This record gives sequence, structure tokens and C-alpha cells, in this order.
Amino acid sequence: MTITSVADLGRAARTAAADLAVRTRAEKDAVLHAMAGALVADAAAIIERNAADVERAREAGTADAMIDRLRLDDSRIAGMASGLRQVAALPDPVGEIVRGYTLPNGLQVTQRRVPLGVVGIIYEARPNVTADAAGLALKSGNAVLLKGSSSAAASNEAIVGVLSAAAESAGLPGAAVQLVPGGHDQAKELMRARGLVDVLIPRGGAGLIRSVVEESTVPVIETGVGNCHVYVDAEADLAMALQILLNAKTHRPSVCNAAETLLVHADVAAGFLPSALAALREAGVTVHGDHRVQGYDDAVVPATDDDWAAEYLSLDLAAAVVDTLDDAVAHIRRWGSGHTEAIVTRSLEASRRFAATTDSAAVMVNASTRFTDGEQLGFGAEIGISTQKLHARGPMGLPELTTTTYVVTGDGHVRG
Amino acid sequence: MTITSVADLGRAARTAAADLAVRTRAEKDAVLHAMAGALVADAAAIIERNAADVERAREAGTADAMIDRLRLDDSRIAGMASGLRQVAALPDPVGEIVRGYTLPNGLQVTQRRVPLGVVGIIYEARPNVTADAAGLALKSGNAVLLKGSSSAAASNEAIVGVLSAAAESAGLPGAAVQLVPGGHDQAKELMRARGLVDVLIPRGGAGLIRSVVEESTVPVIETGVGNCHVYVDAEADLAMALQILLNAKTHRPSVCNAAETLLVHADVAAGFLPSALAALREAGVTVHGDHRVQGYDDAVVPATDDDWAAEYLSLDLAAAVVDTLDDAVAHIRRWGSGHTEAIVTRSLEASRRFAATTDSAAVMVNASTRFTDGEQLGFGAEIGISTQKLHARGPMGLPELTTTTYVVTGDGHVRG
Repeated sequence: MTITSVADLGRAARTAAADLAVRTRAEKDAVLHAMAGALVADAAAIIERNAADVERAREAGTADAMIDRLRLDDSRIAGMASGLRQVAALPDPVGEIVRGYTLPNGLQVTQRRVPLGVVGIIYEARPNVTADAAGLALKSGNAVLLKGSSSAAASNEAIVGVLSAAAESAGLPGAAVQLVPGGHDQAKELMRARGLVDVLIPRGGAGLIRSVVEESTVPVIETGVGNCHVYVDAEADLAMALQILLNAKTHRPSVCNAAETLLVHADVAAGFLPSALAALREAGVTVHGDHRVQGYDDAVVPATDDDWAAEYLSLDLAAAVVDTLDDAVAHIRRWGSGHTEAIVTRSLEASRRFAATTDSAAVMVNASTRFTDGEQLGFGAEIGISTQKLHARGPMGLPELTTTTYVVTGDGHVRG
Repeated sequence: MTITSVADLGRAARTAAADLAVRTRAEKDAVLHAMAGALVADAAAIIERNAADVERAREAGTADAMIDRLRLDDSRIAGMASGLRQVAALPDPVGEIVRGYTLPNGLQVTQRRVPLGVVGIIYEARPNVTADAAGLALKSGNAVLLKGSSSAAASNEAIVGVLSAAAESAGLPGAAVQLVPGGHDQAKELMRARGLVDVLIPRGGAGLIRSVVEESTVPVIETGVGNCHVYVDAEADLAMALQILLNAKTHRPSVCNAAETLLVHADVAAGFLPSALAALREAGVTVHGDHRVQGYDDAVVPATDDDWAAEYLSLDLAAAVVDTLDDAVAHIRRWGSGHTEAIVTRSLEASRRFAATTDSAAVMVNASTRFTDGEQLGFGAEIGISTQKLHARGPMGLPELTTTTYVVTGDGHVRG
């Protein structure tokens, strides 16, 4: 494969974006359905290319779990196609009038949603992200530059080839969906393509996200690092607290909205911790506790500062006893990643204070941290979960892939 | 003056921000009124410190126009105080429920506006920006770190001293409003204070903005560079077009929403350009034209690529004849800065196509580019005009100084 320069890809993407910006929902949905059909029709070819990636990973001694994430089969390709059809069924965010009014001088003002333009995605996850991200970008009227991991290079090339050809056959420019080939040098070029790429969204582990944030001159939306806390308040229903804690920690420990730290109010520590620590042990969870938590169970291992900061993504949990709700909040503000914090309480005042002061993208009151998720919150699709404050915070759906423009209409208005 | 480290200022600002986030509108408005009163009460002391800056500027041979921008007197200080009182009269964006709904499982979801946290402003403008920016940040619940130009150091120190003391006397932490002392090294520290500062807003010339965008690891909102276009369509009312053009170019040439380029459809060039070029000449405007424009008036000087890209901020205007609306849009997309473009036309279709394809923060239909302004659009106050696509685009008011948080309330909800 010839490696085209990222700048060339970016310029082609910009041209495609200008075309995409004026497409109707009907046209975009037709393209998404064409892409879904093409993925299923070309499944055998994609699987063959995927086999090469899998073989390469095996030879490199990659862990079985990673190889499983990489592998594509008919059912996973059908899942990708079905994801594209689901995105087609969602409302088009483009054209929404966010605000509108008429000024005293008669000028009519509307603020409208328009596509961002060119969206870059840098990801290290499974090859199905390729189709998901392309579908979401396209539906919101954006051209997309996809930079997957080199371990999935053949799979991604096959998938993007199919998607791009389907787009062209449905009347869109093929450059609406492009893969950025190559390795780290090309990833860096993408991060420096300010003026060609409107936003970069890294999807993957903390290391990837940090490096994109530090190296990029293109605006970045940080996603996904979750050091989520469950705080059991003095006024908590302790049975509910245990249910929420176990769900938040053990339902799917490897994801960003899993709980990583438990904070228990001193007033209920004696009533809650013995049974909670036993239940956690039974569920296979290793608890890293402060000295007060250690006093309740011999299996608790001592926590260090690293534990308070950790996004374990495993069956580990940091735990501390706090004297007040404000101490819990101070702990979260110091050590948290601003993703999701849950409070279990019967007290309206405690829930209000916790929600107002934790400074995170999402606060769960008497609910599991696992609900911070675009699908769970009813968005229909999710491009990632932003843990930064600008532009988008929390789960990002289609509207978060747009910007706005003011359209002001007069009849010869000038300023006096 | 001892120079405190920017990190220390940032930590103090974060602590202040946590306090500010839970203040009611009434509390914040009381502080704004206290600040306004203190500015007027301490006017003499501020003017004395300002005189030192003015003296220093004079000794350095600074141009009279710049010295005038720097100078404070009773009336200008009264203007700063009145600005703070106007901000107090505006609605509080914090606490607004942006979205809210109940999910099928009974979870109640609200997305609420909350302060960004710590806002950094780097500016080179007049000392009155110090009070304006502090007022807007405070009203939206943010702590602010102000880095003014060294030429206004004594004035800014005096103003921030007064504002901070007034905040403290009204019960807020004094660190809600802090000046970052020192020069370029401290400005750079501020740009690298990721994790302490939530957003940086540069206010000033293109050079300042570019350097902040390139050097900052803190998220930046780009403001203000305006290469605005007026496009006279084939279907334009030519008298209206001339009125709008003259207003956009000559009403206040030194600001970012002034017009810098005129594009005329070939069909109306012969009908429009002779009188328009004469009127521009009479208004003291130098026109830099392409070869077709040059044919209509001997006073037109030849335009180069630099002219198409220029933000003159002076009585200069680039001008070209285009064959189609799409050519006008292509010119704007290639050379524009994404600030404001105006179209003059009677055609609904032309206005729709122009608005949908120019890709700028604002499009004026039969109105002057000068209306892209927070006050003109009814925002009551403006922190700047964003020419980027993330977070805020176009004039930024108080809501643009906030982010949101999801608050999800259940009664023991867990994921199955």
C-alpha cells in the first residue's frame, strides 16, 4: 500500500465535508444502509483480511483476550451492519435550531446545528470501532479520518475500503470515510493537522489519550478515563448501597464507568463494611483499604496514593472511611478523573450537595455508576464519554459531533 | 512585588472555584455590586497607579493612540463599574436544566449547567478588560486568572487588588479574582497549567491568539480574528448592498467584525462596482482588486494572495468578481477566518445555499457583518467571539463560560 500524506487525506476530507454538510437526512441514511449491506455482502473478504491480522498477533505472542477482541466473524460483521442501521434510525442533529428569536430592530436570529467538518478518531480498540465511528461521523454530516491500531491494519483497511466504496456507489464522495495508514509518524501528522481536522477524539487507554492531548494542536475531546467513586452516605439505605456497589464494581470491571473507589461515611462504616467486604470478597474483589477499612476485614490490603488515583479496570477496589460528605467530595476532587460519582443516600440535602460539588461529568443518586453510557441514557449511540469540560461532557451522541452557526436575516440592516 | 508561582495561584483558584460553584445568584450579584462600588470609591488610587503605566509608555515612545487606550480616568472607571452592574442584572446561567427526561426504567436524567471552574484570560487590551472579564467569570461561577499585558501591569494590579478585596469583604474567597504577575514566562506557565486551569481565552491580536493556541496544553477558545466577506449576489438589491458594504467596512474598521473582502457576482459587477468603488474612495477606502475589479476604477490597486488572507483592521478592502455563488463560497472557505460572512440577495435559494455552505460562525443575510457582537445579538455581555468550532462558536456570553453535568436519580437502579 502506498502511504498517502495525512495532509492530502485531510484536504480530500475537507472537500468531502463541504459536500456532506448539505446532504439531507434521507441521503445520509441511504448511505448508511448501503454501507451496512456492503459489509454483510463482503463479509468473507473482510474476514480473510482479518485472519491475517489475527495470524500476525498470534505470531507476536499476543494474549488470547486481545486476539479475541481483534477477531471478526459473520456474527460480528452483522453486528457492525446492524449498528449502522441503528444510527440511520436516529434523528439527524444537523439543522436543529438551538436558539432563535427576533431582535427589537427586526433582525431574525437563529443558531443552527451544522457539522463540525472533519473528525479524526485515533483508536486502539476492536475493528468494529471503524464502522461505528464512520457511521456516527457520517450521520452528523462529517467526513472522518480513522487512525486505528497497526495490529488491526488489514482489517481496518478492508472495512474502510468497503464503507468508502459503498458511500461512492450511493453518491457521496469516497473521501467521506478514509483510513490514515502508517504508524506513529502518521498519527502525529494527524495530531498536527490543525486547519484540516476540526476535532480529534482518541478512544482507548489512558496512555493513548494522554499522548494525544499532549501532542495535538488540533482540538481534542478527551474521553473515557474513569476513576469512578461510590459514596455511601450516613443516610444511606445500606442494602441498596451494597447492591449498587456490587453492580458498579463487578458488572463489567473493564469499562470506564465501573467503580474504582468506595467511600463510606464513618457513621455507617460499622454497619456497612463487614457485610460489604464479605460480599466483595465473595465476588472476587480485592479491596485496597485505608487503615479504618483494614480494621473490618483481614483480607483488605493497605491502600497507597496510587490506589486512590487508580483506574484498575479489574476486580480491585480502593476503599476509605470519611468523616463527612464534604470529606468524600474533597477526596473525589483530589483523586477522581471527573467521570462519574455515585451517592447512596435517603437525604435530599446530601444528594443536592454531592451533585453540586463533586465536579464530575455525571453524578448518580441511588443508581449504579454503570449508567453513564450513551445507550443507557437514551442517546441511541455513543462516540465516547468526555471527561473534559469544553464542548461535550459525559456520554457524547450525535449532537456532540456538531457545532453551530448563527444565521441573522435582515432587510438592509446596518449599525448606526 | 513578589512573584507567586502560577501553580500556586492555580491551586488557590481551584479552591475558590469549589466555593463559587455553590453560590446563589443573589450572592454573586451582591459581590458584583460590591466590586462596582469599590472601583468608584478607589478610583483615585487606581488612576494614580495607572499614571505610572502611562508615564512608562510615554518614556518608551508608545504611540498616542495606544496611550489613550491605556489611560484611565473617572469616567472610564465609572464605565467599568457600570459594566459590572450590567452583568449583575443578567440571568445566572448556572443551574439551568439544558435537558431533562425520565427513562423507561424510571431513572430521572437532568443535564445541568455548572461553572467551568477556573478560567484564564490572556489579554493585551485596555485595563478595563480586567474588570469586564472578572465580572463575567464570577457571574458564571468561575474563578479567574487574569494575565494582562506588562504595559498595564500597575493598573491591572490596582484594579484586581480592589476587586479581590471587595469579593472578600462580600464573603467570597479573594482568590476568586487573581492577577498573574510577571511576563512571558508566567504566561507560558499559565498555558501549561493543565489540570489547574479549565480553559484559556486569549483576547487580542492574531499573534497573541496564535501563540496561545500553539503553546497551550490547557484547552483554548480561539477568539476574534475576522477576515469577514460581503458577497453581492446576482439577485442583490444594489442600493442595499452598497449601504451594507459601507457600514461593514467603514463603521469601525479596527474591529474583528468589520468587512475585509468584497465579492461581487459577475452579473451585477458592471451595475454595482462603478458606484461602489466611487463611494469607497470617497470614504477613504483603498481597494485591492483582482484584474476584473481593477477594470472599473483606476484607483484600485492590484490584489495579491496576502490581500485575500488579510485582516486589515484599516480602511483597506480586498475585492474580486466571482462567476457564481459557489465560487464566492469557495473563495470564503479558502481565505476566510470563519468569523462572519454577509450575503446581499433577494433570492431565498441563494441565501439558503450561502448560509449552508460558507462554514463560518455567523452568516448575515441582508445585514452588516457588524452585527456579530454579543451586545447586538442581545446577550447583554460578551467575553469574546469564538472562531473555532468546539464548545462555543460566534459571540460568547455567560452560558459559554459554563459546562454541564448529568445528574441521574434512581431508587437503587443497577444494570442487569
